Amino acid sequence: MTSEPENIVIAGGSDAGISAALRARELSAKADVTLLVADRYPNFSICGLPFYLSGEVADWKTLAHRTVEEIESAGIHLLTGHRVVRFSPDQKQLLVRNEAGGSRTFSYDELIVATGAVSVRPDFAGMDLPGVFCLRWMQDAFAFESHLETRHPASIIIIGAGYIGMEMADAMTRRGLAVTVVEFAPNVLSTFDVALGNRVRRELEANGVSVYTGFSVERIDARGDSFCVWSESASVCADMVLVAAGSRPETNLAQGAGIALGQKGAIRVDRKMQTNLPHIYAAGDCAETYSRLTGKNTYLPLGTTAHKQGRVAGENAAGGNKQYTGTLGTQSVKIFNLVAARTGLNEDEAVKEGYAPLSVDIETWDHKQYYPQAQALHLRVTGDQKTHKLLGMQILGPYGKEVSKRLDTVATAIYSGMAVEDLNQLDLSYTPPLSSPWDPVQIAAQAWERSVRDLLG
Amino acid sequence: MTSEPENIVIAGGSDAGISAALRARELSAKADVTLLVADRYPNFSICGLPFYLSGEVADWKTLAHRTVEEIESAGIHLLTGHRVVRFSPDQKQLLVRNEAGGSRTFSYDELIVATGAVSVRPDFAGMDLPGVFCLRWMQDAFAFESHLETRHPASIIIIGAGYIGMEMADAMTRRGLAVTVVEFAPNVLSTFDVALGNRVRRELEANGVSVYTGFSVERIDARGDSFCVWSESASVCADMVLVAAGSRPETNLAQGAGIALGQKGAIRVDRKMQTNLPHIYAAGDCAETYSRLTGKNTYLPLGTTAHKQGRVAGENAAGGNKQYTGTLGTQSVKIFNLVAARTGLNEDEAVKEGYAPLSVDIETWDHKQYYPQAQALHLRVTGDQKTHKLLGMQILGPYGKEVSKRLDTVATAIYSGMAVEDLNQLDLSYTPPLSSPWDPVQIAAQAWERSVRDLLG
Repeated sequence: MTSEPENIVIAGGSDAGISAALRARELSAKADVTLLVADRYPNFSICGLPFYLSGEVADWKTLAHRTVEEIESAGIHLLTGHRVVRFSPDQKQLLVRNEAGGSRTFSYDELIVATGAVSVRPDFAGMDLPGVFCLRWMQDAFAFESHLETRHPASIIIIGAGYIGMEMADAMTRRGLAVTVVEFAPNVLSTFDVALGNRVRRELEANGVSVYTGFSVERIDARGDSFCVWSESASVCADMVLVAAGSRPETNLAQGAGIALGQKGAIRVDRKMQTNLPHIYAAGDCAETYSRLTGKNTYLPLGTTAHKQGRVAGENAAGGNKQYTGTLGTQSVKIFNLVAARTGLNEDEAVKEGYAPLSVDIETWDHKQYYPQAQALHLRVTGDQKTHKLLGMQILGPYGKEVSKRLDTVATAIYSGMAVEDLNQLDLSYTPPLSSPWDPVQIAAQAWERSVRDLLG
Repeated sequence: MTSEPENIVIAGGSDAGISAALRARELSAKADVTLLVADRYPNFSICGLPFYLSGEVADWKTLAHRTVEEIESAGIHLLTGHRVVRFSPDQKQLLVRNEAGGSRTFSYDELIVATGAVSVRPDFAGMDLPGVFCLRWMQDAFAFESHLETRHPASIIIIGAGYIGMEMADAMTRRGLAVTVVEFAPNVLSTFDVALGNRVRRELEANGVSVYTGFSVERIDARGDSFCVWSESASVCADMVLVAAGSRPETNLAQGAGIALGQKGAIRVDRKMQTNLPHIYAAGDCAETYSRLTGKNTYLPLGTTAHKQGRVAGENAAGGNKQYTGTLGTQSVKIFNLVAARTGLNEDEAVKEGYAPLSVDIETWDHKQYYPQAQALHLRVTGDQKTHKLLGMQILGPYGKEVSKRLDTVATAIYSGMAVEDLNQLDLSYTPPLSSPWDPVQIAAQAWERSVRDLLG
C-alpha cells in the first residue's frame, strides 16, 4: 500500500462494484467505502434471470449474491436507488439523484466506475411494441414475468442465439411456451466453432425449439395479440418476443465527463483498471477487458471478469498496486441437458490473431465405460502448429458429467502458457466412476499431437 | 530422436507397460515392440475391480482398457501368459516361461521393466486361511467373486481403510454383506487430513459400515465357517476377510539382475525413467515416482502415474529424450455418494517437507444456491505462510457435483508453481447451474489469504 485514501466511492453495485467495495473494505482500515446503486437490487445475479423466468428459481430474492444486510455488515455504506447523474472529475465529485427525485453531491478520493451495461436495442421497427422485451436487469425480468403471468403467451420468438438466447429458449420451453429462435449468424452460439454449434442446435431442436439461422431481422410488427418478426423474405409469428442481441457498456455519463472510451464504447482501462483520468478506475461490463492470449483489450462483459476486475480496482483504489491478469474468454452454458464450455481462442479467433491453428475433435467417455452411466463428451482442442502453444478448448457433454470444471483445467493450463502436449504431464485425478487414467482433455491433447505430426510429416 | 533401436521389449502389460508399448510404437517406425504379459489380462483396469465385485460392472471383460485385438492392431507383438523368470542385462536378454511350462529367450536393444506391484501380505497369522483374500490382479478378483458366489458370506471384515478398502466397503455393502472396516491408523483415508477423513468415516457409518480405527491386527483365526480378526484387546468376526494393506513393488528378479532399488524397494529411476543399468528403463508400480513438489523420488503406485511414466519410458526407449515431470499425489475416490479428491501435500506432508503450512477449511455450494440441487462442498487449501506457495487442496462433495475435475484446476495450478492467491486470477467457467462467479476453489483461496493476513498481523 503506497497511500491510503479516506473516501472511496463506487458507482454501481452489481458484480464489479460489489467486488471492488468488498476488496477495498478488506484492505483499507481507514477508508470510507460508499456503494451507489441505481436500482434496489444490489449484487443480484443477472446471470440467474433465465432460471427465475423458467420457474426453476422459486423466489427472485434468492438471486442476490449477498443481502443488503450482509453488504452493510461488511462495513460498506450502501445506498440503493441512488443513480449518478454527473461525474465531475475536476472537483472529485459525483452528483447523484435518489428515487424521490432529490439530488446530493458525493466527494471522493478515489472513484470506481462500475455502471455495467445495457441491452443492445437494434434499430429495427417494432422494438417498442408492448410484447417485445429485452433482458438485462431485475426490472426487465419483472416486466417479462408479469407479461407471462397476465397474458399467458403460448409462444415466443427469441432474437439472438447467444448465451442468454439459448438459456431463455430452454427456460421458455420449461415454462410451456413454443419457442422459435432466429439468429443472424449461420450458426447458434457462435463463440463455439460450427461443428459444436450444430450440436447445440440439435439439442434445441430435440427439445422442440425451432431454429432459424441466417435470419436477418428487418422489423417486428403486431398482428392482433401476436407479433411477427420479419426478415427480407420470411416471417415468424408468436405471442411475445425477446430481443437478446447482446449488451453494450453504459458509459454516456463517463464519456461526457472526459473519461476516455476504447473498444466498443467501453471505458478504456489499463491493467490496473485505471482510466485516463487520475483517481478514477473502471471495472466490469462498462469497461474494456484485457485478453491474456492476445495481449490487447477487448470488450467481453461477463460476471466472472467483472468480479475479478472489481477486485483489482478495489485493491488499487485502496492504495494497492495490482494488475488484472486477463480473460481467456472462458464461458459455460447449460442448455436443456447439454453443457457447452469453452476457453481461449476458437479456430476463427486464432486465425485472426495470426496463429496457424490446428483444431482436433475427439469423442470419448466422461469416465470408464465399464462403470454405469458413462456418457460421451465431445472435445475440440486448438493449438498453434508452429509453437504448439495451447490456444483453446471447447467441450460439450451432458449436465452432471463434469464438463465445465474439466474445461477449467485447460483454462488453467492456458493461463500458465502451456503447450498442447503439456496437458499430458498434468497429474489429474482418476477413479473409474469419474474419469479415465488419461483424462479426456489429455486424450484430446494426444490426438492433437498425432494430428500435427501427421500434418507436418 | 538420437538413435532408433530395432527391438524394444517390455516386461509387463498393465498400465505402464501398455502405455510404453503404444508410445514406442507411435514414435518409432522401425523398432519391433514386444509386450510380455504374465497373465492373460493385458491392460485390464485393476482400479475397476471393486466395481466388478460390487456388481456394478456386469461383465469383467469390459474392464480391459483395450482388447487384445486393439493392442495387436496397433502393431505390438503381444504375448500373454509369458512371465519373465530371469533378466540378463549383460547379454541384453530375458528368459521367459510360458503357461505351458516352456521357456524362451528374448533379446532386446532396449528393455522396459513394468512388472507392477503385489499386495502387501502382513506377517500376522491367518493370512493363508481359505476365507482371507487380497485384491490386486484379475485372478485375485476371480477368487474373491467365486467365494462370494459359492459361499454366500453375509459379512466381511476389511483390514485397511485406504482407497481400495474404502471402495470395497462400498462394494460389499452394495453386494448385501455387513461390512466392518478395521484400520491401524487413527483415521480412515489417511492421505487426507483428519477432519476430512472423519467426514468419510461418517459417510461409511451412515451406510451401515462399522469402522474401528486404531485397531492393530495381531492375527486372524477361523471359528467354524467364520473368521475373527484380533487386536491385542478386541476381536471382530465375519464370514470372510479382505486384507487391503497396500502394495509393494514386484522387483525381486530385477534386483537379482543388478537393477538398483530405491524407495520402498521400488526400482530406482531417474526422470527419464532410466535405471542404473544401460538400456533398461522402469515404469509404473514397480518403479519409484518423482514428486514434483518435493523434488525427490517416492513410492506412490497409481494408474495415472503408471501411464505417464510408461509413456516417457516408451518415448526414451524409442530414442527420445523425455523427462517425467512428476506426481502431485492427485487422487480421487468415490465412496457411496461421497467423492473425496486431493492433490499436492496435506498438512502433515507439508510440515515434513519443511514448509510452514497454513490450511484453511471452507464450506460452500457447488453452484449458485438459488438454482435447484445445490450441494455443499468442503474444501481445504494448504499453502506456505512465508512464500504463499500453493501446496495442496482436498475437496469432499457429492457424486455428480464436479468435485474431482474441480480439484484438477488446483492440480494444474500447483503443477505451474502458483501461489494460493493466483487461483483468484484464473478465468474459470461459470454458469449458475454449475458454479459461482468465484469458483469454490477461488473462494477457498480468498479465505486462505484472509487467514494468513490475520495470522501474520
